Amino acid sequence: MPFVTINVLKGKSKAYTQAIADEVNAAVIDTMGFPEDDRYQVIHECDPEHLQLQTRDTDRVMMHLVMRGGQPDHAKKAFYARVVESLARNPGVDPGNVMITITENRDIDWSFRGGVAQFCPQ
Amino acid sequence: MPFVTINVLKGKSKAYTQAIADEVNAAVIDTMGFPEDDRYQVIHECDPEHLQLQTRDTDRVMMHLVMRGGQPDHAKKAFYARVVESLARNPGVDPGNVMITITENRDIDWSFRGGVAQFCPQ
Amino acid sequence: MPFVTINVLKGKSKAYTQAIADEVNAAVIDTMGFPEDDRYQVIHECDPEHLQLQTRDTDRVMMHLVMRGGQPDHAKKAFYARVVESLARNPGVDPGNVMITITENRDIDWSFRGGVAQFCPQ
Repeated sequence: MPFVTINVLKGKSKAYTQAIADEVNAAVIDTMGFPEDDRYQVIHECDPEHLQLQTRDTDRVMMHLVMRGGQPDHAKKAFYARVVESLARNPGVDPGNVMITITENRDIDWSFRGGVAQFCPQ
Repeated sequence: MPFVTINVLKGKSKAYTQAIADEVNAAVIDTMGFPEDDRYQVIHECDPEHLQLQTRDTDRVMMHLVMRGGQPDHAKKAFYARVVESLARNPGVDPGNVMITITENRDIDWSFRGGVAQFCPQ
Repeated sequence: MPFVTINVLKGKSKAYTQAIADEVNAAVIDTMGFPEDDRYQVIHECDPEHLQLQTRDTDRVMMHLVMRGGQPDHAKKAFYARVVESLARNPGVDPGNVMITITENRDIDWSFRGGVAQFCPQ
């Protein structure tokens, strides 16, 4: 389910950005129990001066997830750990340069398709 | 009031993107009781690989609304239904390819202009 | 801490956009008690038709902050007032054309680096 906005640097290869998106998606599914096809992502490629992660001046990734409340703390922690581990491997982003934040909402706050609130069928 | 971020595909006509923004705005106002002039939108045009809605590969729209808590479930449902109906008509987006999510905040969390928290005048 | 997304008009000078980002960051730190190095910003430069602030057609800025709950109302009000005052001075944005909204989350919802939830060390 989560709606994931991922901000990366502009000027990298397509493979670089794709790897980040793919790895974040795999981490979401593997650590928080979402279905295999639960991919809802927007990726923004930003000029360096538009992606301010303290004073980092090398590769960096900042992401924001919107998801329903209910994920236990340990699942979020597993997600954070998995994301940085995966991005370090592919495409090779320093774990120290990955920022993640989450905001939660409720069942009624989702319509995935067709103009229907899938979690509130009644 | 709501602050609406709309993500659409890049490479369409100006009229296409404008229609989406206009129709979403009309849906907000008509279904959730906001004032006529309550338009606060940011539109991002995204490369196809940066707009991941499961495996859709045709037109698609993903939007995120931030609004004060208090809208009843039926108003949100009416909004979802209205958005996909409107976008199907103009500019012609498949209702199955429209994703919407909402996060809520509180009165103090808004300053519309002038550096004032309009909902908390005291 | 806050994760700040700032939407400004495209086509301005680098100095203009940089001034907005710097001034918003200074306002965050000065009014809400965040550490000096707490800068987490994404800046989007938008075509005029993609930055809809009611009917404004001159300079405008729309921003969204994600932060932990706990800031008192007076701090948020001080932040709003300071932002518009600062942006009016540098780079010279009309206070009437600055919109701010905030959504709050919890300790577990942050990983600033290294895949760790810094506010939930246990």
